[in-house]
Amino acid sequence: MRKLLIIGAGKSTASLVRFLAQKSQEQQLEITIADKNLPQAQKIAEISDHLKAESLDIFDVNDREEAVKQADIIVSMLPARFHIEVAKDCLKFEKNMVTASYVSKEMQALDDKVKAKGLTFMNEIGVDPGVDHMSAMQVIDRIKNQGGKMLMFESFTGGLVAPESDDNLWHYKFTWNPRNVVVAGQGGAAKFIQEGKYKYIPYQRLFRRTEFLKVPGYGKFEGIANRNSLQYRDIYGLENIPTLYRGTLRRVGYSKAWNVFVQLGMTEDTYVMENTKEMSYREFVNSFLPYSPSDSVELKLRHNLKIDQDDLIWEKLLELDLFNPDKKIGLKEATPAQALQKILEDKWMLQPNDKDMIVMYHKFGYELKGEKHQIDSTMVSVGEDQTYTAMAKTVGLPVGMATLKILNGEITRSGVLRPIYPDIYNPILKDLEEYDIKFNEQDVEYLGYNVENVN
Amino acid sequence: MRKLLIIGAGKSTASLVRFLAQKSQEQQLEITIADKNLPQAQKIAEISDHLKAESLDIFDVNDREEAVKQADIIVSMLPARFHIEVAKDCLKFEKNMVTASYVSKEMQALDDKVKAKGLTFMNEIGVDPGVDHMSAMQVIDRIKNQGGKMLMFESFTGGLVAPESDDNLWHYKFTWNPRNVVVAGQGGAAKFIQEGKYKYIPYQRLFRRTEFLKVPGYGKFEGIANRNSLQYRDIYGLENIPTLYRGTLRRVGYSKAWNVFVQLGMTEDTYVMENTKEMSYREFVNSFLPYSPSDSVELKLRHNLKIDQDDLIWEKLLELDLFNPDKKIGLKEATPAQALQKILEDKWMLQPNDKDMIVMYHKFGYELKGEKHQIDSTMVSVGEDQTYTAMAKTVGLPVGMATLKILNGEITRSGVLRPIYPDIYNPILKDLEEYDIKFNEQDVEYLGYNVENVN
Repeated sequence: MRKLLIIGAGKSTASLVRFLAQKSQEQQLEITIADKNLPQAQKIAEISDHLKAESLDIFDVNDREEAVKQADIIVSMLPARFHIEVAKDCLKFEKNMVTASYVSKEMQALDDKVKAKGLTFMNEIGVDPGVDHMSAMQVIDRIKNQGGKMLMFESFTGGLVAPESDDNLWHYKFTWNPRNVVVAGQGGAAKFIQEGKYKYIPYQRLFRRTEFLKVPGYGKFEGIANRNSLQYRDIYGLENIPTLYRGTLRRVGYSKAWNVFVQLGMTEDTYVMENTKEMSYREFVNSFLPYSPSDSVELKLRHNLKIDQDDLIWEKLLELDLFNPDKKIGLKEATPAQALQKILEDKWMLQPNDKDMIVMYHKFGYELKGEKHQIDSTMVSVGEDQTYTAMAKTVGLPVGMATLKILNGEITRSGVLRPIYPDIYNPILKDLEEYDIKFNEQDVEYLGYNVENVN
Repeated sequence: MRKLLIIGAGKSTASLVRFLAQKSQEQQLEITIADKNLPQAQKIAEISDHLKAESLDIFDVNDREEAVKQADIIVSMLPARFHIEVAKDCLKFEKNMVTASYVSKEMQALDDKVKAKGLTFMNEIGVDPGVDHMSAMQVIDRIKNQGGKMLMFESFTGGLVAPESDDNLWHYKFTWNPRNVVVAGQGGAAKFIQEGKYKYIPYQRLFRRTEFLKVPGYGKFEGIANRNSLQYRDIYGLENIPTLYRGTLRRVGYSKAWNVFVQLGMTEDTYVMENTKEMSYREFVNSFLPYSPSDSVELKLRHNLKIDQDDLIWEKLLELDLFNPDKKIGLKEATPAQALQKILEDKWMLQPNDKDMIVMYHKFGYELKGEKHQIDSTMVSVGEDQTYTAMAKTVGLPVGMATLKILNGEITRSGVLRPIYPDIYNPILKDLEEYDIKFNEQDVEYLGYNVENVN
């Protein structure tokens, strides 16, 4: 029996565990799920007899080291900032490890030592980052191997509500951490490059500078620029690509309405408001509008942001019950972002029967033998229920697959890794197709931007 | 002879020194101007034989202590962050001191020790802070002494170009630190209170939420909310005042045009742009606009920010030569704010014959014997030339007056102080009138905000 230790029983762990449990007999796995919260680990473990739940406080060095020492491979599903502690143990006891998180500076710094011991520390193998890396690199490498030259790479991912559960005007529900959604885009301008020109979008314009995308079978979406589209330029080997853009997907119309919150200052997270415990939703809105006792909060908002009487944005605001004078924020010392999150959670929580959906869209523009081409590649994954969500599946499955492939010696590359190498992404993408996580490629006309001549 | 040490030969020092030099015979003053930059100190000292210039590096502890020890009183005209070093020496050698800067936490922490030694550390006795404190507290104390209850205090200050030198469409030139103007309002929402309701304006709305004010003899201005209007609530004894608002003055129309820069992201100071050394003004603007080779930068900007063909904002942008493809930013690794400052400095520097102007506007609303009243108080000071600017005068004169009054035992209050006490502000405000820095009070109808009833 091979011992597999999963540390952290969070939202994505259930899908990972189900996948591994199904393979446990054939693969001779003894799987332990360790979490500080034992009942949470037990709940995940109860689906199979091959699973064991254990209490583990990762800040107890002895317990943590003991757990790592006994395992053959370790999967850290902890919050990203805690991986490094596990990684140090893995290095000490010479164990391979897998995480779905971004490679931190501290993690990257271990690379030489990890390589020297011939270990594999696989990271960024969830959905975003993860499936995005693999699906993008597969096409980029193919184009390069054919002798093509990359002209454009645009990539969009969105965690959304599935069409069958899409029953609000925003066409959005929280399928992951609500806080990240409320503060998304803050902390600096979005930077990208188009036709060799660097472009910057400040936060206050971000939600008005979207572009539309059509996903076959799923209709139209809009893409909002991510903060740093250039982050993976070198890692993807796209140093000289003239157009590189990464974004987040929402349903059409979301951003224009969300911009109301941005403009009013409701998404700010840098200061605490007065009296938020007793503040009504209506008072919250009024805090961001001029004082004028002869006018309603509604008209002040409409006037201030120039929202026409027949604008659907207005219906979206009403749907959130934003002007309710009786509902209270009820949070002590809340920032505007925290108060807004509270209001949105009333309406945007996934209901017991709701399903979520992950949508990914890549555009690859390239030149081959003097001709320009474009491939559009899309992937849609719909969740099964509230446990086996699309988010959990698209994170958990690639993590599980990578773990098995490392354990079985199918992945042998050593170092602190991302899944950007053919020997990693090819077998995993193939396996993911069995779980209906597959990309639909289309050759489309390359339009680029240089439609005319000027400027 | 009494020995007076002025440390720091900056912009405001000339006015301060001229005032003191004129008094030096009658007051038996021996005045030393000390600065790291000896020629700069010498230039200021050359106006009178009673003045001595000295080289002093304030980071040389021995030299600094020696200089402080020999003086009877010390005026620190250094950048604000350096006062604390001088303050510690003053405490050690039991000398009084004066600064025009905000009381820092470190300075405030010395209060007990300063009091115990019976010393006076006078701060915030320039123009803003300084003249604003004194002129406001004089009226507030008078109202309170009459038995009135404060309902409203709004206070605005602006450093502007004098009408006779006002020759651009923005009606603005840099009269002080340009950088502060470019980044003004950043770093959190503007917070104030109106009729008992807390209000918050985020940076992206700040320049669209202005209010107009008319200064007798000088026409209309607009007020932009300061970041924290409530900073002096307790210090002014206005704990329960329902309306408290502080702002910055500009000429009407400035803010609406400035908002173009804010919206485009040109005022951001948190990241460095690519290639700013070689970047043209036109390319700088284009960085913040969508890529579209078939459209001009001009039309993209107009369309993006919905600027009508006949909007004066457009003429303001053209006047700055914003779309020039030949002029270069010429700064290595500049932030957007630094690049914008460069563009503005081309046009907004005070010319040799230009004069500046300080404008201050206070509104005091109060209730007395069941009736509501309002006093509007305004002050305008116009500079003489580029040396004795209004800014330098309104900073340097109160500093000089306070220094003499402390030296002469007319001000005896001890501690780390602001000029908010009648024994300080009354004599200084009276002296300032001789220099034409005087407030014009008008009783006006109290309108408040509760014109009707609702909301």
